[in-house]
Amino acid sequence: MDESKDKRSQSSNDSTVPRAVVSRLSLYLRELQQLVHDGNTTTNSTQLGTLLGFTDAQVRKDLAYFGQFGYPGIGYRCEELIAAVKKILGTDRSWPVAMIGLGNLGRALLRYRGFHQQGFQIAAAFDVDAEKIGSHVEGIEVFHLDDLAEVVAAKGIRLAIVAVPALAAQTVADSLVEAGIEGVLNFAPVTLVLPDRVSRVGVDLAIELEQLAFAVVNQPENP
Amino acid sequence: MDESKDKRSQSSNDSTVPRAVVSRLSLYLRELQQLVHDGNTTTNSTQLGTLLGFTDAQVRKDLAYFGQFGYPGIGYRCEELIAAVKKILGTDRSWPVAMIGLGNLGRALLRYRGFHQQGFQIAAAFDVDAEKIGSHVEGIEVFHLDDLAEVVAAKGIRLAIVAVPALAAQTVADSLVEAGIEGVLNFAPVTLVLPDRVSRVGVDLAIELEQLAFAVVNQPENP
Repeated sequence: MDESKDKRSQSSNDSTVPRAVVSRLSLYLRELQQLVHDGNTTTNSTQLGTLLGFTDAQVRKDLAYFGQFGYPGIGYRCEELIAAVKKILGTDRSWPVAMIGLGNLGRALLRYRGFHQQGFQIAAAFDVDAEKIGSHVEGIEVFHLDDLAEVVAAKGIRLAIVAVPALAAQTVADSLVEAGIEGVLNFAPVTLVLPDRVSRVGVDLAIELEQLAFAVVNQPENP
Repeated sequence: MDESKDKRSQSSNDSTVPRAVVSRLSLYLRELQQLVHDGNTTTNSTQLGTLLGFTDAQVRKDLAYFGQFGYPGIGYRCEELIAAVKKILGTDRSWPVAMIGLGNLGRALLRYRGFHQQGFQIAAAFDVDAEKIGSHVEGIEVFHLDDLAEVVAAKGIRLAIVAVPALAAQTVADSLVEAGIEGVLNFAPVTLVLPDRVSRVGVDLAIELEQLAFAVVNQPENP
């Protein structure tokens, strides 16, 4: 995840929660959902930690930023903790999302079922390719980028995914800001210039591989 | 980026470099490459910092983990720093990569031009769909997953990208370990169980949106 600018995130009670903690919160949520799927009603910090490679102390410390969730002698009630974490992350509601860019990556992201499962609905797609405008992909209407502000307002869209080429990304970002978008998930390999009030997360696919290469090269005994 | 297990990465001189520093290193590389593309021969920690939203002190502190790169009165020579960072990241060489899974996401990743630009070549693709086996996508041959070990050895592949459904991911991971893969970039929304000697980076697309939702919800004055 692109770390530029968003080092710390505000928690709902205004104390500053380190981004790394919020990241792990999402991992806890994913594991909890899997535990429930597998038939578990309770869990504990040791089990959660083991599943993710964290210590039990780390798990408890992370959750302690947000409240007390454990029951003595029981641990955590999975469904209850899931609901609490969703509330903290803000995913206890449905979020309509705009997809900007319907190239290979945009189309693939449009079809990604995992978004819907976590409360994110791609509500509209935008492109500048005349052949795509007016069509429907996976039931989602494709608008021209010029219609961004109007559609964003009409559909109450607050988040956007940017899947356009690097050269187009900043212009798209400017349009998103103008249209009132509050958060941008950026897949273009550039750092976007955005007002501080607009949240941003960046995923640079090549950087992810670079991070992997570094880890491999620095494994003991590896060249 | 999925943080499970890989909290710290070993640097080439065996001191432990925080993962966050290595992440930022990739961001510096990206900005340096853009600076060179725009005609700059030198830069400095203030400029690099400004481009990314970091302080100049942060930039210098990060680079100091790996050596001294600045020239008094000049700052950094871009091309030299690029070469140095690539060496540190291990991307001063070509990495053949295996793509596992040719669904929507896998196909899109196969076409992603950014990988090649940073020295990563998708050398082979793998799937279990009979219709895809034996075909070529973007000039890359599609093999059956059963041929993984043989092809990995023949092509000297050390890294793999996993773009299969969650339910299939662990089985795929086991096969990758057996085939001698040293690093896994995982897009399936599950935590993979891998031996410690195998490096892993996870990208969970829904979690990226969750992180964004949290940031938006916690912006001052946002509901």
